[in-house]
Formats: sequence, C-alpha cells, structure tokens
Amino acid sequence: MSATAQRRGPAVEQALLDATVQLLTERGATVTVDDIAAATGVHKTTIYRRFTTREHLIAAAVRHLGERIVPVVEDVDPRAALGELARSVAAALRSPAGGNILRAVVAASASAPELIDLADEFFRERYEIALVHLDRLAAAGALRRDVEPVVVWEQIVNPMHVRALCGRPTSDREADALVDLALHGAAR
Amino acid sequence: MSATAQRRGPAVEQALLDATVQLLTERGATVTVDDIAAATGVHKTTIYRRFTTREHLIAAAVRHLGERIVPVVEDVDPRAALGELARSVAAALRSPAGGNILRAVVAASASAPELIDLADEFFRERYEIALVHLDRLAAAGALRRDVEPVVVWEQIVNPMHVRALCGRPTSDREADALVDLALHGAAR
Repeated sequence: MSATAQRRGPAVEQALLDATVQLLTERGATVTVDDIAAATGVHKTTIYRRFTTREHLIAAAVRHLGERIVPVVEDVDPRAALGELARSVAAALRSPAGGNILRAVVAASASAPELIDLADEFFRERYEIALVHLDRLAAAGALRRDVEPVVVWEQIVNPMHVRALCGRPTSDREADALVDLALHGAAR
Repeated sequence: MSATAQRRGPAVEQALLDATVQLLTERGATVTVDDIAAATGVHKTTIYRRFTTREHLIAAAVRHLGERIVPVVEDVDPRAALGELARSVAAALRSPAGGNILRAVVAASASAPELIDLADEFFRERYEIALVHLDRLAAAGALRRDVEPVVVWEQIVNPMHVRALCGRPTSDREADALVDLALHGAAR
C-alpha cells in the first residue's frame, strides 16, 4: 500500500462516519448505504469492506457521535459531576440527532442479532464516565454496600432513553430529579 | 353488512394479532405483512384495511401481547404489589417474545414517525397498573411530595427495558433491587 493510500484510509472513514451521523440525524433509521455512498462519493464496495454491514456502519457512526456530544466531566464533587453528566445526556437526547440516533441503533440491532452486543457496548461505554464518579461516592462510603453503582446510573439515564424512544424529551430539571432520586435511593 | 361478516371481523383481527405476535416472537422485527398474510390466509388488502400499515399492526400485536403477559396484580400491600409487578415485567422481558417484541416496536417506531406516539402509549398503558399502587403509597404519605410517581416506576422498569434491548436479562433478584432502590429514593 502506498503512503498516500495509508493516509487516505482514516480520512475516508472519518468522512463516512460524519456523513452517516448527518444522514441519521436528518432522516433517522431509514438511511441506506446508497444514501451514504451518494453523500460521500465513496463506492459502496469500499463502505462494505470497512464496515461489513449497514448496521455496523450505523453502530460505528453512533459511537463516533457519542464521543462528540457526551463530554467527559471532571469535577471535584462526584454528585455535581453526575448531575452535569445527566444533564448532558438529557441535552444530547433532546438534540435533533438524539432520538433519531438512539432509534437507529435500536432498529439496527433489531435486524442484525450481532448488533445487540454493539448496542450493549454503546450503552456501557457511555456508563463508564459516570461509573468513575459513582465509584468515588462508593469509596467515600456514601453508597449502600449492597448497591451496584451501574444500577444507580441506569436508573438515572434509562428513563431518559426510553422517553426519547417515545418522542418525549427530558428537561434539565427532570434530569436533576432523576439524579436526586437515584442517589437518595442508593445512599447509606 | 351481514351478521356473519360482523361476527367474522373480530375473529379475523384476533387471528391476525395472534399470528403477528407468534411471528414477531420467532423472527423479531423483520416480519413482513406477506409473512402474516401467509400464516393466516388473510389477504394483504384486508390486513392493510384493518391496520393501515405494517407498523400499526405490529403496535396492535404488541399491545395484544402485553395484555396477556403482564398480569394485573391486586395486593393489599402496595410495595409487595410493585415488587410482584416488577418481577412480572422482568419475566416478560426474559421470555423469548420479550426482547424481540420490544425491539420490534422500537424498530417500527424508527421507520414510522406516527408510531412514536404508539410506543409512548404502549409504555404508558403498562405504567397504569403500577401507578395505582404508587398513588396508594403517596396517599399513605410514604412518598416524598416532590416525587412524581411515574418517575419512580420508570426508574424500576426502564433499566429492564434498555437491558432487554441490549440482549441482557434482568433476574427476579435484580428486579427486587431496582424496586428497593427506587422506593428508598422516593421515600420521605
């Protein structure tokens, strides 16, 4: 492979992911590989060589989007950090992309059994940042010993996910209420 | 319309809903109206006349299934009733039908914007039973005044829904933990 071709690979991948995010945002889960090929000028054969299936391209694009819209929050107070993070998830799901993207990944996983794992990975990767803060709360003795930190975070963000799947937004105030309830429930 | 035709209508509808549930359970969201026509011997034109679109038939079938697998629990103790109900949701989502059906309704809503409302209705109808018990807890002064009962139930069942969408089951013990955390969080 020439040096030029090696340089072009990541750029092509980046262009494909950007275009897929853009089209998913605008059109939701009905986007086809033909649409993405037309938008990028990249041949379908190349797209399938890189991503194997339409569903895997969607999964990669969704992960790519997630990296951009859910910021890593570093804060001295874990409760404040969790609140900030919960509000950022609510905002992401309220954005034009949010509901469409979430529905797209779930729709893709419905038609491709191996994407159940990718959906799982998608959610778990997003939980990682929150778990850092929940682990800090646990280490400080602020959580009941019988509580699994990931369950606390699921109780905060999964209601937002299901609401988004139903076309209902979560306001910042509602995100705060979810955090408040979940942390109170898990408190010693 | 003849008396015979009037009697046949509900029977045809019942057969279509039963067949759709069966096919969704076995194959997930990829079921077509052709599949349902073939399984029931009902002409596609008749199916579309009754349900307008494939997605509306799926939504009707999902509601039909829900009526069968999520029992109404009447119990003197609202906490026990909520625990029982949460375990029945966990069991429904662990059943072969559960994940497929949930993915099917979400996938259908992704390709038919008007189904977002049906997905919303699907969830809200299921919440109704739980809300009866949560309202009893609120009336007994067992919940914080600033807590919306529906949010407590979302924190119990939505983690199970998202796990099911990711191919992960929720055990009865995990369902109990969700109930315990959410009720503790909402307690005065």
